[in-house]
Amino acid sequence: MSIAPDGSAYAIPSPAELLDVDLSAPSDRPVVIVQGLGFVGAAVAAVLSGAEDELGRPLYSVIGVDLATPESYWKIGKINAGASPFSSPDRELEDLIRRGVLEGRNLVATASESAYQLADVIILDIPLDVRERVVGSANEIHVELNGFEEALRAIGKRMKPDALVVIETTVPIGTTERIAAPILREERARRGIQAPLLLAHAYERIMPGPKYVESVREYFRSFAGIDEASTDRTRAFLDSFIDTERWPLWVLTDTTSSEMAKLLENSYRAANIAFVYEWTLLAEQVGVNLFDVIDSIRVRRGTHDNMRYPGFGVGGYCLTKDSYLAQWGALHLFSSNVALDMTLAALRVNYHMPRHTFDLLSELAGGSLDGMRVAVFGVSYLAGVADTRNSPTEMLVDELERAGARIVAHDPCVAHWEERPEVHLAATSGSALAAADAAVLAVPHPEYAGLSVSEITSGGTRSLIIVDAQNVLDDEKAGELHSAGCRIAGVGKGHWREKGFHL
Amino acid sequence: MSIAPDGSAYAIPSPAELLDVDLSAPSDRPVVIVQGLGFVGAAVAAVLSGAEDELGRPLYSVIGVDLATPESYWKIGKINAGASPFSSPDRELEDLIRRGVLEGRNLVATASESAYQLADVIILDIPLDVRERVVGSANEIHVELNGFEEALRAIGKRMKPDALVVIETTVPIGTTERIAAPILREERARRGIQAPLLLAHAYERIMPGPKYVESVREYFRSFAGIDEASTDRTRAFLDSFIDTERWPLWVLTDTTSSEMAKLLENSYRAANIAFVYEWTLLAEQVGVNLFDVIDSIRVRRGTHDNMRYPGFGVGGYCLTKDSYLAQWGALHLFSSNVALDMTLAALRVNYHMPRHTFDLLSELAGGSLDGMRVAVFGVSYLAGVADTRNSPTEMLVDELERAGARIVAHDPCVAHWEERPEVHLAATSGSALAAADAAVLAVPHPEYAGLSVSEITSGGTRSLIIVDAQNVLDDEKAGELHSAGCRIAGVGKGHWREKGFHL
Repeated sequence: MSIAPDGSAYAIPSPAELLDVDLSAPSDRPVVIVQGLGFVGAAVAAVLSGAEDELGRPLYSVIGVDLATPESYWKIGKINAGASPFSSPDRELEDLIRRGVLEGRNLVATASESAYQLADVIILDIPLDVRERVVGSANEIHVELNGFEEALRAIGKRMKPDALVVIETTVPIGTTERIAAPILREERARRGIQAPLLLAHAYERIMPGPKYVESVREYFRSFAGIDEASTDRTRAFLDSFIDTERWPLWVLTDTTSSEMAKLLENSYRAANIAFVYEWTLLAEQVGVNLFDVIDSIRVRRGTHDNMRYPGFGVGGYCLTKDSYLAQWGALHLFSSNVALDMTLAALRVNYHMPRHTFDLLSELAGGSLDGMRVAVFGVSYLAGVADTRNSPTEMLVDELERAGARIVAHDPCVAHWEERPEVHLAATSGSALAAADAAVLAVPHPEYAGLSVSEITSGGTRSLIIVDAQNVLDDEKAGELHSAGCRIAGVGKGHWREKGFHL
Repeated sequence: MSIAPDGSAYAIPSPAELLDVDLSAPSDRPVVIVQGLGFVGAAVAAVLSGAEDELGRPLYSVIGVDLATPESYWKIGKINAGASPFSSPDRELEDLIRRGVLEGRNLVATASESAYQLADVIILDIPLDVRERVVGSANEIHVELNGFEEALRAIGKRMKPDALVVIETTVPIGTTERIAAPILREERARRGIQAPLLLAHAYERIMPGPKYVESVREYFRSFAGIDEASTDRTRAFLDSFIDTERWPLWVLTDTTSSEMAKLLENSYRAANIAFVYEWTLLAEQVGVNLFDVIDSIRVRRGTHDNMRYPGFGVGGYCLTKDSYLAQWGALHLFSSNVALDMTLAALRVNYHMPRHTFDLLSELAGGSLDGMRVAVFGVSYLAGVADTRNSPTEMLVDELERAGARIVAHDPCVAHWEERPEVHLAATSGSALAAADAAVLAVPHPEYAGLSVSEITSGGTRSLIIVDAQNVLDDEKAGELHSAGCRIAGVGKGHWREKGFHL
């Protein structure tokens, strides 16, 4: 059985059963396979199933493919039941999958590799994980390539000779030309296929949140094929479901450029976040309100208006690892001696940042958190989303546990915290606060901004220790909480120390 | 005598002569003193002398003050002759000084400290230098405070009790409250002054280039006084010559915040430049055109559109040192243990970048540059300006000299290279090229983009080695140069290596 996060269970088919699956093409529409039904693949499959021609007819028959394993098969089960494997604040995801599976019948999911032989286009959305989230140097980076390479081999064994393979996964530089192409060519050669391989890298820029599905269809895309024919086929394919009049496609010179572009843009974001984090500790020590300072600088449009704010840390799937993929590819696929020192230093700064919130809490508590009941608000990695992958709250909770604190967590978006199932999740912020000695505002979910002084102090009966790691509380509310007997610190809020809120 | 860069000489007055200077206030207008007539102070004095009331009458009598030393006195001489001490592509600087000195007679310069007793407002524009441009750790940073502290002491000895002191200089965090205020208060106490000190930090954002003067009057300003009265006086003063309807003033919480804001915004810029430099070496090794990749990413407005391009290095007065002032102030004025590691790493990356251009040249030359005649194009630190302070070309030239190369340099904006007077500056790019074996495009002065293949190769008679460090040559021209027998590399242009242009 494969169990979904919501508890629903799906029987994993046996290898023999998989061979029996009837996957004859359901129509004369082109067949698109999306390999890997994770956060990205599920959304891409949904969008493709909803793509229509001028007459409103579905453009594609879409087959989602994932593994017949306990970890993955439930996604197939979910989709075939007409449901999204992931909860999203964007209702359209659920709607598209329901319509595609139950109404249009142009979306189906399977664990059968036989599906590949039907495909005109095969999109790879298989995640490439890194083993360690923090490394000291380039040669400590380990990228898990097995699943990716096995999928490519399975595709090469069965794909139609003229099918287009599009790698949408974020991969180390050089992967398309130096890993994917050789595997596919080797398997095709075994089958005696003479036709040139059609292969491209075309990365996504999907944003979690309320415009999740729209971010697939309506945003700039960059890509490159391994040759002109691959580029042309990929351009036509992307053009078929993306609003390219408004969001023109960008054709890069080669697939290494496309791979690097994705890694570079995410590394830039991660470095810009880390830069402000580094100054956050300084601002606190010298009594400066770094939020105000940054706002005063952000008026410089075009050069400084993307400055980030102090905060709790960086989570999610991309910003925590993409720099490693660049460094790994440089070292292992190009034998390059370039060390991305600053870039990797940024990831270290971000990784250790939740530790700073822990330190502030310890300081307010006079050094010991042993036995203290700490309410942690927010376990996802981003406000307003349920995604808990690499959430910085993980590190805070680990530190709190080591320090002997008793933890109750709360998150309006998360009912079950997959990565830390042992942590009790309170049903409401009120119940999390009811017995707490301390509170940490870790994720700025909108509802936390609405917490009143009375709610936080249980009607003035409790004097909490509070760390606001995400600028949830303004100066006025912090002052009222302090007046009500709370000790309160804020990440990046050196002026709270000056005002005596720590005492 | 004090000799100006253009060779004009000015007799330095003796201390006795300085006492004799008649500095009785020339009118009932408020007197503003600008202390320090460098790049910033000269422009600020010029702008203040041109400030007018609604009826077109000068608002202020402006006195520029600098030292009676060989290094500085010529600036006073220049201004009193109605000329700008610095050449600028902005004609308005020269015009304002000529009008203020020779027509309006509301601008004068002096080395006499007696001037302070006339002032209603005293602006400090005294540069605070750091001794080393590259350091390994925080405690290796040395800030030269002597001149700054001496000026403050002289001001404290003579200032009117209710004069406003505005520190416009970029200073270490904490300087206003922990260095300037104590010195001024001590000297005022000696004089028995009871009135509270009026003191503020109000930093400038002056941009070299054709809108030099406009950048004083028309841009956002942030500031903070040491108390409410100081803040109010400073606000009114800035409002009198800045277009604050269009560019509203930003009042920060305290002077440390203002000091930090300036250091933070310049450090952010320096770090963003360094980030791309780090990826530049990688792009070259893996054959990627990083300019194209960055252009493809810059379409992401609001988050990525300020990404910088590969280049030659970072020079100038600010981005090369401001991060050090932050770290120094943290350590020495606040005893803070915060290490701005990433920020300081960025300055190291930028500092060493010209070395990469040297390495590319060496590689093209097969390892040895001994005896090679190298034409270096551009010695200022920025396109279109004459400013050579901390120019990255300094490092390139030093490396070339060490390698035994014979250097001829050229710069359309620079007639005399103050920092490297031994380097021969050719009068034209053509004469620099005439006898050259190699050329380095180090600064993207507009005229270099106009160099034709024929001009570069002296009509096809010379096969040069060329390194384009600043994206001056496009792919087409690079291809033509290669066809004409040149070997050519470009910083950030990995695709030129792929095309065989290096060979």
